[in-house]
Amino acid sequence: MPVATIKDIAKLLRVSAATVSRALRDSHEISAPTKEKVRNAARQLNYFPNPYASSLRKGRSKTIAVVLPEVADSFFSLAINGIEAIAKEKGYHVLIYLTHESMEREVEILNEFKSGRVDGILISVSKETNCSQHITNTMEMGLPIVFFDRKLPDVNAAKVITDDYESSYIATSHLIKKGCTNIHFITISRELYMAQKREEGYLAALLDNGLFPSKEKIVICNDTDEHNQRKIKKLFTGKLPPDGIIAAVEKIIPLVYLVTNKMGIKIPDAVKVIGFTNLETAKILNPSLTTIVQPAFQMGKTAATLLFKGIEKKNYDLSSDRLVLPSILIERESTQ
Amino acid sequence: MPVATIKDIAKLLRVSAATVSRALRDSHEISAPTKEKVRNAARQLNYFPNPYASSLRKGRSKTIAVVLPEVADSFFSLAINGIEAIAKEKGYHVLIYLTHESMEREVEILNEFKSGRVDGILISVSKETNCSQHITNTMEMGLPIVFFDRKLPDVNAAKVITDDYESSYIATSHLIKKGCTNIHFITISRELYMAQKREEGYLAALLDNGLFPSKEKIVICNDTDEHNQRKIKKLFTGKLPPDGIIAAVEKIIPLVYLVTNKMGIKIPDAVKVIGFTNLETAKILNPSLTTIVQPAFQMGKTAATLLFKGIEKKNYDLSSDRLVLPSILIERESTQ
Repeated sequence: MPVATIKDIAKLLRVSAATVSRALRDSHEISAPTKEKVRNAARQLNYFPNPYASSLRKGRSKTIAVVLPEVADSFFSLAINGIEAIAKEKGYHVLIYLTHESMEREVEILNEFKSGRVDGILISVSKETNCSQHITNTMEMGLPIVFFDRKLPDVNAAKVITDDYESSYIATSHLIKKGCTNIHFITISRELYMAQKREEGYLAALLDNGLFPSKEKIVICNDTDEHNQRKIKKLFTGKLPPDGIIAAVEKIIPLVYLVTNKMGIKIPDAVKVIGFTNLETAKILNPSLTTIVQPAFQMGKTAATLLFKGIEKKNYDLSSDRLVLPSILIERESTQ
Repeated sequence: MPVATIKDIAKLLRVSAATVSRALRDSHEISAPTKEKVRNAARQLNYFPNPYASSLRKGRSKTIAVVLPEVADSFFSLAINGIEAIAKEKGYHVLIYLTHESMEREVEILNEFKSGRVDGILISVSKETNCSQHITNTMEMGLPIVFFDRKLPDVNAAKVITDDYESSYIATSHLIKKGCTNIHFITISRELYMAQKREEGYLAALLDNGLFPSKEKIVICNDTDEHNQRKIKKLFTGKLPPDGIIAAVEKIIPLVYLVTNKMGIKIPDAVKVIGFTNLETAKILNPSLTTIVQPAFQMGKTAATLLFKGIEKKNYDLSSDRLVLPSILIERESTQ
């Protein structure tokens, strides 16, 4: 059965479309018996109010946007779950946009929001994003924005992040305590604020423990697995192979395990490894992997809760909200 | 700078709002110089047309919905990527809804679509879904629906699936060829059509190879890891421990590795294991895991492409489209 319109109801009851519309909105201008008749006819004819008409009337889209670099990472998958849980509670719909780490795409996506498609935005910026104009422009139009996980440092917006500096400091100190003296840090970017903080935490822990940092010990991976494997292999064929590795993002972990395995380098005897990941499989790797686990689900929930504060209270200033949820170190065989 | 309305432009140019609206829609009723003036004013005042107003006018929301049981599974994450790639090409927005394997939630979500929020739906049904009324109701309202991965067998709608029967038959035959005679099948549901097909493929391969199926060899896991670990442990403490295991869904794999590891049961010497998964970590497990890999990204792309056929061509009958994309077996150490 096709969907009916207000006109169909009006025709059936021989009243005006305006009367039907008012009755459905429970207007005081319409009598109770007429409202009853209209509602019955609506049910009978299979009428559903158009959500976009209601959006236009109320100036609310009942929709939030989540802008992510990717979804094939356990952190973002879990964060979506947390966001969706809160949106459902609030009766909101969730639009998902992937930037695939492209700043150009991120700018395009945010531009579309200026027209009222969404009531608020949760964003984790792309690896390339080095300018905040598209974010501040959107905020100036009155659209609340909350950063989560990956933020831009110079933007005065709400942020839900984890303690990247701290957790990387803890990871590095853990390796030092286990006897490592030549710890390498493998990452995907030096532009991402999150990656910078992890690098700083690593460097600080080295210095605090009397170890000297060096440029060669910081390895930046790109998007091609082959190239990255070659880079990691080179570390172990050099004069001073690492005795400790921090895989600062999830996708580096398989590379480290594959290369060491192929080269016959034993974890944790020859090299100890810590990875930043929320993957359940960390515990069934052999050796099982010591991990820094981010509170992904909780970060999604917290960021969404904060965003709804900004959406619901027009005068609420989100910009000073900055929540840091701690990550935790889970010790397993790879650092024993 | 706040967003301007049509009225603001009209006021600035001292023309009627209707004129501005027609000029912005490039109506032939408006002269070229006026259109030019209106467009300039729109730019100057920071005006963006409301997408929902345009949706109402055109009867199109430019939005599709993706209804999934969960996102924290590598298959669904990759499928979202495929769907998003096609939606972006078409200039469409993607709403994500999670049922968390609840049929009640699935019905609620579909009910909301009746009002015109989306132009089409991609759905992978929940574990509980045993009735198709909510799907057929939605389709009868003229909303195109494409099933992907998990479908309902009795609904006459477009489907993009993988060869669950075939790939499970291949997995089982592979274990038999490797010498297994007591193969157990571990799954999460007997209601899901996809799970039924995998079970049938397993049973057929046993029979075709002269092995006898038995009820005790089919293990149904639930949502609690502890309970499932106990169930799997019981298999190995029984009189006839399995020498082959098929983990028919991704989340079972960690359980099998954990239990066998704790009990000192060696894979592949004592028991050979195959898992259905798209996880990159399969190759770095120790032993690395032989897997059935679904074409997740491709399935997402194909399902979305099919849906847009249904959206764009009003008279195109989607219901007879049924695409089966093959899964592949990747042999690794766990079955050697």
